[in-house]
Amino acid sequence: MYTAESTVRAAQPVGNHSYEEFKELTREFHGCAAPGLLIGGYMVEKARARLPEGTLFEVFVETAKCLPDAVQLLTLCTYGNGRIRLAETGRFALALYDKYTGQGWRVFIDPLKLRQWPEIETWLLKKKSKQEQDSDRLLEEIGLAGEELFGIQSVGISERFLEKSSSGPIAPCPGCGEPYTAVDGPICRGCLGQTPY
Amino acid sequence: MYTAESTVRAAQPVGNHSYEEFKELTREFHGCAAPGLLIGGYMVEKARARLPEGTLFEVFVETAKCLPDAVQLLTLCTYGNGRIRLAETGRFALALYDKYTGQGWRVFIDPLKLRQWPEIETWLLKKKSKQEQDSDRLLEEIGLAGEELFGIQSVGISERFLEKSSSGPIAPCPGCGEPYTAVDGPICRGCLGQTPY
Repeated sequence: MYTAESTVRAAQPVGNHSYEEFKELTREFHGCAAPGLLIGGYMVEKARARLPEGTLFEVFVETAKCLPDAVQLLTLCTYGNGRIRLAETGRFALALYDKYTGQGWRVFIDPLKLRQWPEIETWLLKKKSKQEQDSDRLLEEIGLAGEELFGIQSVGISERFLEKSSSGPIAPCPGCGEPYTAVDGPICRGCLGQTPY
Repeated sequence: MYTAESTVRAAQPVGNHSYEEFKELTREFHGCAAPGLLIGGYMVEKARARLPEGTLFEVFVETAKCLPDAVQLLTLCTYGNGRIRLAETGRFALALYDKYTGQGWRVFIDPLKLRQWPEIETWLLKKKSKQEQDSDRLLEEIGLAGEELFGIQSVGISERFLEKSSSGPIAPCPGCGEPYTAVDGPICRGCLGQTPY
């Protein structure tokens, strides 16, 4: 809770990093110490602490905003190695789970605890415009709250999400000549016009 | 081309990194020096070199396999800051473009050049099982080929992809109580059962 007492309490560490060190990591990777990314760091560590030591885990994030970068900074799960996946529910939550059994822990914003941190609540619920928010106080509250902001629940990942799919054969596209995933059809999706260009 | 001459040719640098340094970065971030990630590093640098100095750019990757991690290691574009997006065409290609004008460069595997690097071709077209491939030679060919493996073309990103969408208001979900993106409907998508748990 943010009280007079909080001012003598120190920012919580993010796993093995001090809060300041973690902020610096976020600036180097993400471009800035975004509030969602700092909160995400504590979420990752809260979930990881519950997994048995040495568990090979993977991650579901429930939003693509900021959270994936907390995972990528603190674990070996990355977008490009397929160990982070997005299950978009619109909630600010993530789950770390055993790659083989699917058993793991989901960490989420606890609405009751959120009320105890007014600047975090203002930011998350967009109660004020960004310009009107007190960003120094927001970052201070995030560090003081640490993992206390969250609830945690045991989850099991459905079996169909545990199977790894292969991309299948790769062949030259008769349209553009580039190698493509042949399961997509006789020509690549690029030649079908499915590009942003 | 891989010839006797190649053996005295050195691996190409990946931007400001030596090939060995870049391999080390990939191990720390991605868990291993995956061939697609090493190739991706050269792709990023080939596209970036064509953008005017100081351009604020964003990225489309045409596959989620490996390529996003090359982008994340070499630029400030990350999954969590929204500056990498996926336009899945099944091709191993990416485009770096000016965030405001959409003008940029797409780098792709040139099928004619691919034929000159037999181990890369074997890997990309899955001509042999992973066990049968010569992974040392594959990594050597990737370093020797460097940016020569690719074609490059000018692209313009369609205007509808340049507009940033806001997630809109955030409100407590009447089902679970967690804050969620209220545009999704009266309850969150988690409460609608759209989760992997």
